[in-house]
Amino acid sequence: MADKLVKDITSMDEDFAQWYTDIVTRAELIDYSSVKGCMIIKPAGYALWENIQHELDRRFKETGVENVYMPLFIPESLLQKEKDHVEGFAPEAAWVTMGGSEPLTEKLCVRPTSETLFCDLYKNIVHSYRDLPKVYNQWCSVVRWEKTTRPFLRSREFLWQEGHTIHATYEEAEDRTVQMLNVYADFCKDVLAIPTIRGRKTDKEKFAGAEATYTIEAMMHDGKALQSGTSHNFGDGFAKAFGIEFTDKDNSLHQPFQTSWGLSTRIIGAIIMVHGDNDGLVLPPKIAPTQVVIVPIQQAKEGVLEKANELAASLKSFRVKVDDSDRRPGFKFSEQEMRGFPLRLEIGPKDIEAGQCVAVRRDTREKYTVSLDEAESFVSKMLEEIHNDMYKRAKEHLDSCIYNAVTYDEFKETIEQKPGFIRAMWCGSVECEDQIKADTTATSRCMPFEDQERISETCVCCGKPAKHLVYWGKAY
Amino acid sequence: MADKLVKDITSMDEDFAQWYTDIVTRAELIDYSSVKGCMIIKPAGYALWENIQHELDRRFKETGVENVYMPLFIPESLLQKEKDHVEGFAPEAAWVTMGGSEPLTEKLCVRPTSETLFCDLYKNIVHSYRDLPKVYNQWCSVVRWEKTTRPFLRSREFLWQEGHTIHATYEEAEDRTVQMLNVYADFCKDVLAIPTIRGRKTDKEKFAGAEATYTIEAMMHDGKALQSGTSHNFGDGFAKAFGIEFTDKDNSLHQPFQTSWGLSTRIIGAIIMVHGDNDGLVLPPKIAPTQVVIVPIQQAKEGVLEKANELAASLKSFRVKVDDSDRRPGFKFSEQEMRGFPLRLEIGPKDIEAGQCVAVRRDTREKYTVSLDEAESFVSKMLEEIHNDMYKRAKEHLDSCIYNAVTYDEFKETIEQKPGFIRAMWCGSVECEDQIKADTTATSRCMPFEDQERISETCVCCGKPAKHLVYWGKAY
Repeated sequence: MADKLVKDITSMDEDFAQWYTDIVTRAELIDYSSVKGCMIIKPAGYALWENIQHELDRRFKETGVENVYMPLFIPESLLQKEKDHVEGFAPEAAWVTMGGSEPLTEKLCVRPTSETLFCDLYKNIVHSYRDLPKVYNQWCSVVRWEKTTRPFLRSREFLWQEGHTIHATYEEAEDRTVQMLNVYADFCKDVLAIPTIRGRKTDKEKFAGAEATYTIEAMMHDGKALQSGTSHNFGDGFAKAFGIEFTDKDNSLHQPFQTSWGLSTRIIGAIIMVHGDNDGLVLPPKIAPTQVVIVPIQQAKEGVLEKANELAASLKSFRVKVDDSDRRPGFKFSEQEMRGFPLRLEIGPKDIEAGQCVAVRRDTREKYTVSLDEAESFVSKMLEEIHNDMYKRAKEHLDSCIYNAVTYDEFKETIEQKPGFIRAMWCGSVECEDQIKADTTATSRCMPFEDQERISETCVCCGKPAKHLVYWGKAY
Repeated sequence: MADKLVKDITSMDEDFAQWYTDIVTRAELIDYSSVKGCMIIKPAGYALWENIQHELDRRFKETGVENVYMPLFIPESLLQKEKDHVEGFAPEAAWVTMGGSEPLTEKLCVRPTSETLFCDLYKNIVHSYRDLPKVYNQWCSVVRWEKTTRPFLRSREFLWQEGHTIHATYEEAEDRTVQMLNVYADFCKDVLAIPTIRGRKTDKEKFAGAEATYTIEAMMHDGKALQSGTSHNFGDGFAKAFGIEFTDKDNSLHQPFQTSWGLSTRIIGAIIMVHGDNDGLVLPPKIAPTQVVIVPIQQAKEGVLEKANELAASLKSFRVKVDDSDRRPGFKFSEQEMRGFPLRLEIGPKDIEAGQCVAVRRDTREKYTVSLDEAESFVSKMLEEIHNDMYKRAKEHLDSCIYNAVTYDEFKETIEQKPGFIRAMWCGSVECEDQIKADTTATSRCMPFEDQERISETCVCCGKPAKHLVYWGKAY
């Protein structure tokens, strides 16, 4: 059975898309449901999301975020209040038109995102500078009626958090927008071992209704980009559309400034495609639901199971599990590798005699002989090392997949032959972005914060004077 | 402002319903939204739910529960597979009929509960006795299109957890059903300081599709009952309707047995109506988002704020907050009382000189002088004492509101004059339940596990031979 699990995985070099689908189903992260485009998140997948939530929520709260819960439904008239926003979301909205057996007088949109609901609340509770700021967030599911869907990457329903804040000044809103982007980037690095490029989206790619959208972009194994978290500064656009005003200290009326920021179950797709290999998932130790799995060898022999359980007890500060099922060790190994558990400890009669066990890393397959007395400190150090090495490899991969293009021919040739990001100058016009997308399917991923080199003076597409360095790439 | 908060509360003796509404809004637990019947759960309300989730989830996992996430939508054909179930839920379903700008080929129900989705999953993943049991749970929101709504008690959307399990034998399912009811009862007692009556629902009151429904019933201040958590044994009814089968050890095919169990944000209504008083909320210490609030007296004087912060630092094992806002202490006190913080510590120049602070319990208003050196052990003991006293008072109230009725005249007189539960014998017929409800608005709450005394030999309503002792009462 476990053997079969692995044999069923397509090699990633052969068919990356099929490899991805094989992993999400064989590692039992999701199951398909009777509702087209909606996924069932199974225990192994949901435990990942719980660990992500737990750690991200803690980081949010350290910055003063308070959690709330807003309604699932948005009346059509409310969704329509901000023009750009409704244009962006109405085409993919799911509409409730009946309650019980009666048609509704106004149809209700199942929330695709909740800016309009938060604006409606803020209009009621923000009146004075004393009411500001509000730094709210909610963990919930949202619905977008996508035509083509893939587990985690694009589904009609997905789980996420959406932060929505409101401030007295533009500067404070801008600071919060960048602050939360940095929370996402640090989280990806420190917890998921995923390096990202932080930057600003072009107007074409920004969120519907935003003045500025910031993004973190991660690089998958196949050289495609995955937008992994975004943070938006709305200026006072929503406040104007919804009539939100506050009285300042000097008794004058002002519009407040707003932000929103979100990270979703999509990030699980990034974990799979950044770290996974042909044997299955490779989970970052900090969010792995099982960090250490202990496999008793010749477990029927007297004392083996007891010693395995003793070892587990000595490691109780980690998420540890003993696999004492009645299957052959080889079966267990390949199932555990499929599931991506970071560290395996094998312990059999000979090991017990020698007072040791054998440790095997999931990421590199390296083996270590570990004294049972030192198991706890070994595991602690090794999980840290696995995290660091996973990050290092992902960073090397990212760095090795960034190319320059000065001419349009270079651009087209590179995008064709070398999966990854292309650094190229851009004039600032949406026409050039459209042209590039039409010719190559690549999109502008971001104008990176930490890389503003002017590699040439002209737009890679039209040849007119260049304004910004942009990272381009094919994306999920 | 804070003064006004309290003045705005209606006395509970004058108008209990208005008192409740005043508290949920003035203590800022919820706000009303543009969507009729859907509430906005604000930070003070959501923090309660987070603490409830955290503690209940921990208790679930100790019994082997695994969390999952199922789709928000149920195709109409799936909802219709179990006859009793669809009859129970279709009349109050919200229906999605459009995705984007196109009508759906099959309308989708926004989940009112997810038995049908879990059955659909179990049909796919349960084939052998080796696949059993599955003990799954999800935390999510559900929608029921209620006509009249009240915050927490009855709303069109609410948050809850729903556990769904599947087992090889009837006995195992029955054990799980009772086990989870006990988890709820213990949680209410140990964490919320709410005593409950555990029992079985009559057929009229059981869940649509269940073979048996068990309930915990709590008693509100006004003598009305609140069903606070339920656990259902489905037998093999759903398995038959959905065609779920497994191969047993002896290679024969069987239908498995299922359960479900849920507890919702309704429980926050119980916390308010069991413990609250005319000054606002009284929160059980174990789930209070702020357990200890420190109020500096004459805080402008040198050293006062520092000492207040020092005191807070010495109490960092609790959820502690210093209220250093520039409002008068009296204002702060009444706002904190409205919000129900269990313990207040006042510290001013004279206290500092004497090396002490003044502690005031929210529940009894008792004052204590506490040496600063002993603050931590005092707070620890006092929070425990507050919990125990709150439970004791609630239990005394419950016990004092239980009455016997042998004749129907006694029953009607008691229900008219004495809010609470009535113990009365019942013949087992739904006609008598209907008659009692029509005459008195009281319903059968449960046939209690721990009280099976036969107080008479005849049904309180029809006079025929009695089968069960039932607790009756008016309910939320």
